[in-house]
Amino acid sequence: MDSDYGVPRELSDLQKLRAEYIPNLPSCLQGSSVGVEFGDRTTTSDPSSDHVIRRLFPHTYGQPLAHFLATSAKGPDAPIIRVGVVFCGRQSPGGHNVVWGLYEAIKAHNSKSVLLGFVGGTDGLFAQKTLEITDDVLSTYKNQGGFDMLGRTKDQIRTSEQVNAALIACQTLQLNGLVIIGGSTSNTDAAQLSEIFAEAGCVTKVVGVPVTLNGDLKNQFVETSVGFDTICKVNSQLISNMCTDALSAEKYYYFIRLMGRKASHVALECALQSHPNMVILGEDVAGSKLTIFDITKQICDAVQTRAEQDKYHGVILIPEGLVESIPELYALLQEINALYKQGVSTEKIPAKLSPWASALFEFLPPFFKKQLLLLPESDDSAQLSQIEMEKLLAQLVETEIIKRTKEGTYKGKKFNAICHFFGYQARGSLPSNFDCDYAFTLGQVCYHILAAGLNGYMATVTNLKNHASKWRCGAAPLTAMMSVKRWSRGSGASSIGKPAINPVKVDLNGKAYELLNQNAAKFLSDDIYRNPGPLQFSGPSADSKTITLCVEDQDYMGRIKELQEYLDKVRSFVKPGCSQDVLKAALSSMASVTDVLSVMTSPSFSGHQPM
Amino acid sequence: MDSDYGVPRELSDLQKLRAEYIPNLPSCLQGSSVGVEFGDRTTTSDPSSDHVIRRLFPHTYGQPLAHFLATSAKGPDAPIIRVGVVFCGRQSPGGHNVVWGLYEAIKAHNSKSVLLGFVGGTDGLFAQKTLEITDDVLSTYKNQGGFDMLGRTKDQIRTSEQVNAALIACQTLQLNGLVIIGGSTSNTDAAQLSEIFAEAGCVTKVVGVPVTLNGDLKNQFVETSVGFDTICKVNSQLISNMCTDALSAEKYYYFIRLMGRKASHVALECALQSHPNMVILGEDVAGSKLTIFDITKQICDAVQTRAEQDKYHGVILIPEGLVESIPELYALLQEINALYKQGVSTEKIPAKLSPWASALFEFLPPFFKKQLLLLPESDDSAQLSQIEMEKLLAQLVETEIIKRTKEGTYKGKKFNAICHFFGYQARGSLPSNFDCDYAFTLGQVCYHILAAGLNGYMATVTNLKNHASKWRCGAAPLTAMMSVKRWSRGSGASSIGKPAINPVKVDLNGKAYELLNQNAAKFLSDDIYRNPGPLQFSGPSADSKTITLCVEDQDYMGRIKELQEYLDKVRSFVKPGCSQDVLKAALSSMASVTDVLSVMTSPSFSGHQPM
Repeated sequence: MDSDYGVPRELSDLQKLRAEYIPNLPSCLQGSSVGVEFGDRTTTSDPSSDHVIRRLFPHTYGQPLAHFLATSAKGPDAPIIRVGVVFCGRQSPGGHNVVWGLYEAIKAHNSKSVLLGFVGGTDGLFAQKTLEITDDVLSTYKNQGGFDMLGRTKDQIRTSEQVNAALIACQTLQLNGLVIIGGSTSNTDAAQLSEIFAEAGCVTKVVGVPVTLNGDLKNQFVETSVGFDTICKVNSQLISNMCTDALSAEKYYYFIRLMGRKASHVALECALQSHPNMVILGEDVAGSKLTIFDITKQICDAVQTRAEQDKYHGVILIPEGLVESIPELYALLQEINALYKQGVSTEKIPAKLSPWASALFEFLPPFFKKQLLLLPESDDSAQLSQIEMEKLLAQLVETEIIKRTKEGTYKGKKFNAICHFFGYQARGSLPSNFDCDYAFTLGQVCYHILAAGLNGYMATVTNLKNHASKWRCGAAPLTAMMSVKRWSRGSGASSIGKPAINPVKVDLNGKAYELLNQNAAKFLSDDIYRNPGPLQFSGPSADSKTITLCVEDQDYMGRIKELQEYLDKVRSFVKPGCSQDVLKAALSSMASVTDVLSVMTSPSFSGHQPM
Repeated sequence: MDSDYGVPRELSDLQKLRAEYIPNLPSCLQGSSVGVEFGDRTTTSDPSSDHVIRRLFPHTYGQPLAHFLATSAKGPDAPIIRVGVVFCGRQSPGGHNVVWGLYEAIKAHNSKSVLLGFVGGTDGLFAQKTLEITDDVLSTYKNQGGFDMLGRTKDQIRTSEQVNAALIACQTLQLNGLVIIGGSTSNTDAAQLSEIFAEAGCVTKVVGVPVTLNGDLKNQFVETSVGFDTICKVNSQLISNMCTDALSAEKYYYFIRLMGRKASHVALECALQSHPNMVILGEDVAGSKLTIFDITKQICDAVQTRAEQDKYHGVILIPEGLVESIPELYALLQEINALYKQGVSTEKIPAKLSPWASALFEFLPPFFKKQLLLLPESDDSAQLSQIEMEKLLAQLVETEIIKRTKEGTYKGKKFNAICHFFGYQARGSLPSNFDCDYAFTLGQVCYHILAAGLNGYMATVTNLKNHASKWRCGAAPLTAMMSVKRWSRGSGASSIGKPAINPVKVDLNGKAYELLNQNAAKFLSDDIYRNPGPLQFSGPSADSKTITLCVEDQDYMGRIKELQEYLDKVRSFVKPGCSQDVLKAALSSMASVTDVLSVMTSPSFSGHQPM
């Protein structure tokens, strides 16, 4: 298998040009020396999960935030270290640059240090198959898409066999650090590994890096994940091309399903970029508990209104996670999943469904039945990329429009739909400048986390909507991003899941969603399609960022730091010896602040979750 | 309906930047004055069709080639003219620039001249729905994709009602010229219209422009068509992303069907750009009379060989025209088509098929049967964009691999295929610099054709592989591109079709095909995937051209002109009064030249057709 790697590559002119691109670095990493400052000890963002996580992660829970800053102080010479890196999640544009950034930082601090890449992803980790990263290996992968420099296999390092194999690999290879590149699943595994390694007295420190095109690894510490920018740009280009096409021919509705797993971040961003007529966000559907018939009716009403304006074309975006957001389909999938867990074989499942689930199942067209019956994925979700929700909706809309035509309520021309699935064709793209810079910086941050001896952290780069020179580098404990899911199982009983870094859904109170909502009516009726065009690497549009990133309030890490500075200032103003008046003012202000915060952080307070 | 047009458009930053792009013009169009020179009278490229075409096109057959050259002589002031322009074919990137180029040339020669765009394509022509083209109308469509400035409807102007409506529109609107933008079908119609207009004494001159993303409007006079460059670049980007993706995950075969109608030009060019593992050209299949089982076997053998190298991924390109290139499927489609023409309804067709066709039909999976039974298109071909040939092949390959696994001949892991259709997502793209320049130049040439009073011509720009300043502008009679198809109907009888500008297939003796053939084995086994990346508008790769264009011998128009210069030189050397020796040398050389040419142009000579 090693022979696959190191095969000479034939780069196009543009690829060669990209290989010469030097990523922008934040100013804190530009100097010769980087220092670390620690913040307060962390909690978890969901207070009700706190005690569970604290109990299960005794070695890695509650560690402080870390901030990396340029220092003039030259520290002692860096020791020789050995680091392993593994691609765990699905391929996302920018992954190679994490490895490159890590390599550059390691070698800059001690040229005798070694970076080993695990060949073939997690399987390579378990089997200790490595490739030493060198300038030569990297030369044709700098700023290039895919994960093909090393390859990837499964997403998970979860079973005790897998965890043991990882432990043995790290010990055998005498690694000081293991860097795990992936999404929420992989970073959940990174949290578990770091705890187990600490428990086992293994010296290998585990660091996670947020790399997932879905954009659903996102929280106070992580503003966006590597790959999301590129994926949204490539998909928006294609969606916009479809809009132009629809408007040129004026006879088709294009139903486009987009990759992005359970959350609708990709669909939301693409809608903000391209202005299609409609986007059906899974979060909206789940929030309003819309059934498949409600959604069909919504689309039909839109088609009918447009027909009254003599418009017979349109573009409708559908996130691949939609199927799990529709209550009755989700319940059906849950039943199927449960039957699989009981060992029921595929062909016997339909007969074992509950009466209502069976009625729904029978109503669905054959192609869709077959897709619902596909074996669930490793994270228990349905095989979202294989379920053609766009086809089901197009068929239901067509049937309903025919019915309305017969009833005389729809008087327009024939409704024509063409279905598409956009996903794979964006995933291997050359990464955007933003993803190149962000990934390269994260890679460097990984080195500084390991150099500081930290275990169970995720590398963070924040303040991303500003120029790269102003980005802030830090690290946040993986446990601080974890939460525990609860399900009610009817009759008052409830069960809880394992602590995990759960994929984050689109925030229906967020600014990106608000922006979409403000424009939804215009998008629907006015065809104000907008084409961001193909991803550019030079010229004014080359450094654009996602709209989601730009409109959201971010820089949580910066604000946490700012708060600390306020607290320090209070302490320095109110040193023993200060006047009675100053002390009194401080006391009454602080009493008021703590009152407000104690209310806001109590479990009964129903304000928005942060972000 | 007019209200659709002139709606304010919201352009992205990149679209705005593109709207500022000034297309490059050939030097012959850069001066203030352009002159026309005529070449010899033309024939048709297929000598055996010549008499048919000559008889059916008495007014427009045999007109000379025209060459446009910069002149210093300032001609008389240009008269006021009125010109109509209509989008006929399918939307291809660059279409708007033809209108822009035409507008600029018309207005530069007389600001009182008028350009009318027909709104809604051919339907607008028939109904005399027009929009006067102005700077304001054009401002947001310069260098932009789609045909949405005016829209398009059907491809054809063919029935006598349609032709009459077009004639009445041109007369009513007092047009001096009608410019038809489209592919081979539309330009065939342009030829017919120009003949009928001439016969009817209508003053409107008809000009065709080669605009089709399929790249199949191509002959001695037309080196490539507008849109082909962009489509191939956008598709190559996506195919390359799939290659990177396949190589990263190492577990899927991607079967990708590409738009391009009956010919495989798009698939060939994309293969040369992206180096996928396999491309199945329709022309190859038809040439070797491969059955669907032969093709399945070819793919299975490739999968098996790769499995022996521990490779379980790959990318296979399939042109949408493949289904009509496979002998038995083509025959089946012909039977279905014939039954439709006899008025048989869809559901009754299967029962009326001949025994062998019925056997094949029954063997095919249900989804494919349904697609084969779709009503044929206006040009009698199957609905190629709706027939999922890639899915059929993937299924057949999977079945065969399972069979080989049971027999023990295939020992590898499970074969996994994922199918895609790339077409619509490229068709609305922002046009490449090449397509912007080429289309704008063609638009200007249209003006000069009309100014020269020519009817029944296609605008031509040649020598395209060189820099735009060196391009040659001209015009070729549409009749010179026509041929007549012959079908043998068994038992010695044969029938002939109407003269048409027929879509040109990939030349299996051409240099592009040769290049593919030389590399096919490497592509298959070595995964030397190449990613040309997203279409760039600045930087070194922005001015790249298709490989097909660059490797082929072209500039036929330039060579025809060069030959004329030789003949002129002979005449001037051998003026009466020259020496006996000179005359003798000239005579013997010319005798030898004419001998060779008379052999080469005789019907029995079996050399390659030009191009």
